[in-house]
Amino acid sequence: MAHTLRDIALALGAEGAGNLDLIVQRATEPQAAGPDDLALAMDPKYAGGLSQGRAKAALLWPGADWQALGLEAALFAPRSRLAMAGLSRMLDEGPDIAPGVHPMAIIDPTAELGEGAAIAPFVVIGRGVRIGPRARIASHVSIAEGAAIGADALILQGARIGARVRIGDRFIAQPGCVIGGDGFSFVTPEKSGVEEIRETLGARDAIREQSWTRIHSLGSVTIGDDVEVGANAAIDRGTIRDTTIGNGTKIDNLVHLGHNVQVGNDSLICGQVGVAGSSRIGNRVVLAGQCGVSDNIFVGDDVIAGGSTKIFTNVPAGRVILGSPAVKMETQMEINKALRRLPRLAATVAELQKIVSKL
Amino acid sequence: MAHTLRDIALALGAEGAGNLDLIVQRATEPQAAGPDDLALAMDPKYAGGLSQGRAKAALLWPGADWQALGLEAALFAPRSRLAMAGLSRMLDEGPDIAPGVHPMAIIDPTAELGEGAAIAPFVVIGRGVRIGPRARIASHVSIAEGAAIGADALILQGARIGARVRIGDRFIAQPGCVIGGDGFSFVTPEKSGVEEIRETLGARDAIREQSWTRIHSLGSVTIGDDVEVGANAAIDRGTIRDTTIGNGTKIDNLVHLGHNVQVGNDSLICGQVGVAGSSRIGNRVVLAGQCGVSDNIFVGDDVIAGGSTKIFTNVPAGRVILGSPAVKMETQMEINKALRRLPRLAATVAELQKIVSKL
Amino acid sequence: MAHTLRDIALALGAEGAGNLDLIVQRATEPQAAGPDDLALAMDPKYAGGLSQGRAKAALLWPGADWQALGLEAALFAPRSRLAMAGLSRMLDEGPDIAPGVHPMAIIDPTAELGEGAAIAPFVVIGRGVRIGPRARIASHVSIAEGAAIGADALILQGARIGARVRIGDRFIAQPGCVIGGDGFSFVTPEKSGVEEIRETLGARDAIREQSWTRIHSLGSVTIGDDVEVGANAAIDRGTIRDTTIGNGTKIDNLVHLGHNVQVGNDSLICGQVGVAGSSRIGNRVVLAGQCGVSDNIFVGDDVIAGGSTKIFTNVPAGRVILGSPAVKMETQMEINKALRRLPRLAATVAELQKIVSKL
Repeated sequence: MAHTLRDIALALGAEGAGNLDLIVQRATEPQAAGPDDLALAMDPKYAGGLSQGRAKAALLWPGADWQALGLEAALFAPRSRLAMAGLSRMLDEGPDIAPGVHPMAIIDPTAELGEGAAIAPFVVIGRGVRIGPRARIASHVSIAEGAAIGADALILQGARIGARVRIGDRFIAQPGCVIGGDGFSFVTPEKSGVEEIRETLGARDAIREQSWTRIHSLGSVTIGDDVEVGANAAIDRGTIRDTTIGNGTKIDNLVHLGHNVQVGNDSLICGQVGVAGSSRIGNRVVLAGQCGVSDNIFVGDDVIAGGSTKIFTNVPAGRVILGSPAVKMETQMEINKALRRLPRLAATVAELQKIVSKL
Repeated sequence: MAHTLRDIALALGAEGAGNLDLIVQRATEPQAAGPDDLALAMDPKYAGGLSQGRAKAALLWPGADWQALGLEAALFAPRSRLAMAGLSRMLDEGPDIAPGVHPMAIIDPTAELGEGAAIAPFVVIGRGVRIGPRARIASHVSIAEGAAIGADALILQGARIGARVRIGDRFIAQPGCVIGGDGFSFVTPEKSGVEEIRETLGARDAIREQSWTRIHSLGSVTIGDDVEVGANAAIDRGTIRDTTIGNGTKIDNLVHLGHNVQVGNDSLICGQVGVAGSSRIGNRVVLAGQCGVSDNIFVGDDVIAGGSTKIFTNVPAGRVILGSPAVKMETQMEINKALRRLPRLAATVAELQKIVSKL
Repeated sequence: MAHTLRDIALALGAEGAGNLDLIVQRATEPQAAGPDDLALAMDPKYAGGLSQGRAKAALLWPGADWQALGLEAALFAPRSRLAMAGLSRMLDEGPDIAPGVHPMAIIDPTAELGEGAAIAPFVVIGRGVRIGPRARIASHVSIAEGAAIGADALILQGARIGARVRIGDRFIAQPGCVIGGDGFSFVTPEKSGVEEIRETLGARDAIREQSWTRIHSLGSVTIGDDVEVGANAAIDRGTIRDTTIGNGTKIDNLVHLGHNVQVGNDSLICGQVGVAGSSRIGNRVVLAGQCGVSDNIFVGDDVIAGGSTKIFTNVPAGRVILGSPAVKMETQMEINKALRRLPRLAATVAELQKIVSKL
């Protein structure tokens, strides 16, 4: 993927200096850069790395003295991660999927594929499926009956798209994700122990021997535009209405979204997060890795939850939370501090008791 | 899937009123219902939705005045989720898997398929596998040598059934689940740090550099009747004896059950739960989402564990638990309350110390 | 897999007694053993089981009186789990994968397969892939363009090896694992709420509506020798440099390793552990089930973390840790004890306050 520095500067809206006709093939860390590489040194701490490597060109922090760094040319990135977004998009070769439909793919005759589709071997596409233009579908993917997917989809190896799932444009599915598995919904003939303790907050009457009867999932999953779903993530179909995910929301590896869950727009659901059935997550919410959300609750817009936060009750919009059960981040920080001192606190109180009893 | 209301009433054992010859095609939420839909309004709070939608028939709470709600007919559900179980089973079209064996499936000649099997493309079934009647096996499934599966199995896309796994009747496997992966069992030539700290509760002698030697899993997995395993869940084979799962137990997405684990009957193992090697889970146990169970412990019958409960020690039968480490739910509730006040408590004690030291 | 006891003794370096020409077919628990089985009774507590079963030969604890136990022959295991490693390797039949390349596998003509490869149906191997001798590749596996895998690989059903992934010798991939999915890396045009609260520890300025722009992953994954990756685990590619895993490290089911993560040698990463982007895990580290590691931190050599430990900050080498947030195991044990007494402590302090205020 050869580009001139001039092309890259243009694409990133970045300023350039020196010989912008230089051609680079890839981006690398400064110390590992060869003469055809663009060294990434968006912070002064990487200056040392530049002298170890052999780069002629680099992406630098604003104001860097590129000539003193021994470079022939430089680009400047005021917001380095944003520059990385544009640069990495230019340099990404994308997966190897040959244009057209591989002879070993099985496409139902009623399915409609948009122009420019690339369908790899061992793909199965079901009855009445509609897929927009320029789809790239890697090997071993299955897309079940009635599913509809927008333009420019990239669906990677072994991803599973369930029946009647509807997905917007520019969708990315990482390998092995399952969209539209059956919800986990079971009921006992009489009141179950779980129903009972939710009312009593823990107390139980006589324990009955009961078996579980399945509630089938008649709904499906509706996903907006610009959504990405991570490797081996699992998103269940709804019971009656669809499970829904808004525009621009990104979902990481091994995330579990239960049946009827609703996630808003532009939210970030990080690795191994679990959201139980029928809960609603607002817009621009960030749930860091391993967060958990109980069923049937609401997490407001712009909430940010730190790693492993466990959310058992509704959270108002804009709150920054941490801990299990979740509280405001600053409260949790104080609790954590106090917890480390708790054994000592207990000793102090015991001492005080002794002293006071003597008084 | 058209049904008369009379048929539905009969199937559910529900009472009906009005024109029971009305035909409905699907079940929907009241506000979204069209004239061919059965509106689901099993609680008075949905009455408003009914007037927004165009349903002629609804499934209502007991005692509802169906005529005043503008309906032509109604069914009444004393226990609404139980009615949903029966209704959703009637209306579920099930996955699109053509009868017979697809020409692009590879079935070992020694495998035995029961009558009425439907086997989708790109399925692989190994040597000596036995599968009962009416099996529906979706695309990309693999069933390894010597596995035996009972009647009426539904095995969805890309599920992996390992060698010599034995499964009862009415089994459901969601997409991507792995049953019978190798156990995670490794040993060091001399005592490992983990063995040491289990004895000393945290103290370590000199640290040795050691590598791990693999213990192969010679056992397999035995699963009872009426079991369901969720999307991308992973259940490991046993080391010598089988990992076992009892009748009627339901396992949700992304659950991890280690080697030699034993789960009893009618238990509910919710999303992202992990059970480490050789632990035993009793009958009718409920582990809510993201619970964890340490290795080699026992969780008694009818235990209910709230979300994210981490179980490090044996739990007696019938207990309702919460927290990390798990304690009785009511105890954890009190601890949580006291935790939120802990920084204030610490300040109070500091104050008391000052006062008392002056006395 | 028939072996004489003499062969087994030789392989394990174990002492034997009695008729070592006896042939055994498999290893079983003592009470379930038939006359062709080697009963596993490496602890005196299994002596009773031996009399229930019908084994003629057993693997016994050192010093056991094999004749009094009614056996014809015995082997002695000073370190029983280590003996299990050798014995289970001898008796493991391994998966059924026919030698040679199955006609329904699709191998790019530029790919190089080492001698003795066994490639099952529906495998896809991409452009320029290199695989060492004696590889066993089960059904539905995909290995993307440019990947390189060493000798004696065992890659099980539906595993996904991404583009340009490099892996050493004796690699084992359990079913459904994904190595080389895209990293979860997104950036907003202006500072995001997450960046802000990291600086302020929880406080936020005005909340902006922003969408996420993708940073593509140009790096890949580099894995050493003797590594095993569990079922449905997910290991992301790096952004610029590779995500790396050292020699001898074992990774369990459903583990998530984010982009740019570095794991050292001989570490044990247990079920459902998550490590966020760019964190480094040292050599011989043990992370028990469901541990979490925040992004951009460092966990030193020989650290052992108990189940569900959540690591938010750097951990020095050799430390044994527990809890969320992680502290030394012994500290967490004391905190846990004090926590159970916390409600009582609060009552005591309230009482003290009353008494002191009267003084």
